[in-house]
Amino acid sequence: MFILVNLKTYPCDPVAVAEAVRDVDDGSDARIAVAPQAAHLERVAETGAETWAQHVDPIDHGSNTGHSLAEGVVDAGAAGTLINHSERRLKLADADGAVRAAERAGLETVVCANNPAQIGAAAALGPDAVAVEPPELIGTGTPVSQADPDVVEDAVDAAANVDPDVAVLCGAGISTGDDVVAAADLGSGGVLLASGVAKADDPRAALEELVEPL
Amino acid sequence: MFILVNLKTYPCDPVAVAEAVRDVDDGSDARIAVAPQAAHLERVAETGAETWAQHVDPIDHGSNTGHSLAEGVVDAGAAGTLINHSERRLKLADADGAVRAAERAGLETVVCANNPAQIGAAAALGPDAVAVEPPELIGTGTPVSQADPDVVEDAVDAAANVDPDVAVLCGAGISTGDDVVAAADLGSGGVLLASGVAKADDPRAALEELVEPL
Amino acid sequence: MFILVNLKTYPCDPVAVAEAVRDVDDGSDARIAVAPQAAHLERVAETGAETWAQHVDPIDHGSNTGHSLAEGVVDAGAAGTLINHSERRLKLADADGAVRAAERAGLETVVCANNPAQIGAAAALGPDAVAVEPPELIGTGTPVSQADPDVVEDAVDAAANVDPDVAVLCGAGISTGDDVVAAADLGSGGVLLASGVAKADDPRAALEELVEPL
Amino acid sequence: MFILVNLKTYPCDPVAVAEAVRDVDDGSDARIAVAPQAAHLERVAETGAETWAQHVDPIDHGSNTGHSLAEGVVDAGAAGTLINHSERRLKLADADGAVRAAERAGLETVVCANNPAQIGAAAALGPDAVAVEPPELIGTGTPVSQADPDVVEDAVDAAANVDPDVAVLCGAGISTGDDVVAAADLGSGGVLLASGVAKADDPRAALEELVEPL
Repeated sequence: MFILVNLKTYPCDPVAVAEAVRDVDDGSDARIAVAPQAAHLERVAETGAETWAQHVDPIDHGSNTGHSLAEGVVDAGAAGTLINHSERRLKLADADGAVRAAERAGLETVVCANNPAQIGAAAALGPDAVAVEPPELIGTGTPVSQADPDVVEDAVDAAANVDPDVAVLCGAGISTGDDVVAAADLGSGGVLLASGVAKADDPRAALEELVEPL
Repeated sequence: MFILVNLKTYPCDPVAVAEAVRDVDDGSDARIAVAPQAAHLERVAETGAETWAQHVDPIDHGSNTGHSLAEGVVDAGAAGTLINHSERRLKLADADGAVRAAERAGLETVVCANNPAQIGAAAALGPDAVAVEPPELIGTGTPVSQADPDVVEDAVDAAANVDPDVAVLCGAGISTGDDVVAAADLGSGGVLLASGVAKADDPRAALEELVEPL
Repeated sequence: MFILVNLKTYPCDPVAVAEAVRDVDDGSDARIAVAPQAAHLERVAETGAETWAQHVDPIDHGSNTGHSLAEGVVDAGAAGTLINHSERRLKLADADGAVRAAERAGLETVVCANNPAQIGAAAALGPDAVAVEPPELIGTGTPVSQADPDVVEDAVDAAANVDPDVAVLCGAGISTGDDVVAAADLGSGGVLLASGVAKADDPRAALEELVEPL
Repeated sequence: MFILVNLKTYPCDPVAVAEAVRDVDDGSDARIAVAPQAAHLERVAETGAETWAQHVDPIDHGSNTGHSLAEGVVDAGAAGTLINHSERRLKLADADGAVRAAERAGLETVVCANNPAQIGAAAALGPDAVAVEPPELIGTGTPVSQADPDVVEDAVDAAANVDPDVAVLCGAGISTGDDVVAAADLGSGGVLLASGVAKADDPRAALEELVEPL
């Protein structure tokens, strides 16, 4: 299972979370990565944790003030990037352009979407993975497997119909190790997490609890 | 073949073009419709021509000042709508929402996209049809069948891979009857046209020339 | 006082509200206008009520599929337009372009903004009027004069500092005739209203109640 | 004079340019700063050059994946930020929110705009400075003082009318030391530069040439 810890713009210490990610990754069978703000990428990557960007723009080198260039986040140490997160929605043509830009720079890609129809659309863009984030579960603490397991299974089917090589992550409603196991049982290849780790009093303990049942 | 004449915000007489669309449609085997500005929908629909909206928003009745409600364009006489035209790109989630809103109101839907990957994505949203608009052909007068026939065939394949019930229109590089025939030969179920008819000195003659080889 | 009734995309009968607007305007000292969806402009204007658009885009005649052209809404009978309503925010450069487009087509303009700083900015674009819409009052039913009278007075001062010829309307928290009088006492030249009239069981009675104290 | 070198997403070595900025700043009466991509902020700030962000979002700590938090760029070493650059236009309400966020984090602010009307609007938001970027001069190499000196003088007047404490920078058409002097003579307190330094074979020599006449 792939576990991606999204730090959003939370008031957490990104280096401390990254060190926990690195250490728990080393001691488990899961693959764990951390996605800080762009301005924190360099310090996070220096910890040795697998580091992801939260967003890249559909651009190349050039006149693009205030945009996130795939090559720029690679320079800072990123190995992958989220695209079209529910808090950073892109136009369809720009999501396609962002996947192409990330590929060009050698970044692994996860394209987020709300529901099975959009997951099919995201898979058609040819990313490494897609992540289903049902809006009704974001930030609720309700595990997706309990609230609406069909949405994960339908997302897995929708992606497989378009391209069976695209993995499906579970992007909302994950906070415990049991949720991670339930997501895997529904056909998910990983999970996106945010506040459950980033805002935990002890991020290391939160991560250890998550990977413990795997 | 379906021929959709997009009037954009051209300085044409929308009623005169609509009357030509209605009459040439009546005298041919093609199905021809016209898409005026929202503010012109009512007068265009009153001609009896099949009338389409250029855009609808992913909204329902409510607090949405300055947006285009699917039910509102139906009231004014629209039978279908373009979604995600290259001049009115939507976020992936909003393109999905716009298809759902159009379905709810009983509008036929054509979702536009730039290339085969995006066409697959557009087809995954479940519209009636998709339209491929290679940016390098928009407004050039170069027929798509001559400049880049692969893009149409690849778009037809991409849509069929996702959902074989979704028709594929050719959305750029069409200006003559031979272009329409070439588009049909490549697997396209119709074409989008704009300046070739809307800005013609004689829109009726331009339409007659288009349908003549069919 | 100018009273602009914004129909948003409410499920009301736009013609019935427009007829009430026309009749109550005729029988009072207030100036009353109605802003329907773009697709309803023509039928609303045909009632003889003063008709406004809810939005125009910063464009000219040309390749602008799915946009609202100032000349197009004038064709349909609009005499003015809202710009940058809180439900249809524009980039600063586009708000400027929309004011210029509206002027070019002969539309009266009201640019909306949230707070006194933005009201100063909106006034600098040279519209006929600005409307202050404190987000905390939108849709609450709390009259602005009671909840936060300073925001109206500060908005009047901010606009006057930039351009004393720009009128200031009160764009939220108005539902009764007393609210209209209170807005006038704070230096406002008019009010924007929406659900209080558009969703009233009897829009005519709601309008009569509004203008009664004037 | 304040000289801000915007590295956009150019394929330059941001550290080498930053070292040149630092050294030329030390040896001249001008104040020179450099604005790299967000992902390069940390390495640029470590050179000791005055470092600026190219953009911040109108957000606070929280659920804002893929956004630029003012406090995050401060952590990485930024002392100021551009807002509403012509390549990163913001909605009026968001430009206001970005100025407020930057103030909260202690960042100096320069809000960009196209013309004197928008400069007045930008000044009304209360930034430290505004920068006028006439679109017809961006990237042309034509000095603004030669092509259209009135636009700078009119921008200075528009800002002074709204708030005399807001400085006006010249944001396009600057490539030589004579252009910098001409901008100063027109009332400008500084200049924005990009390719003239960032894409120069020898950025240090380009900077020395710029400050030489001061």
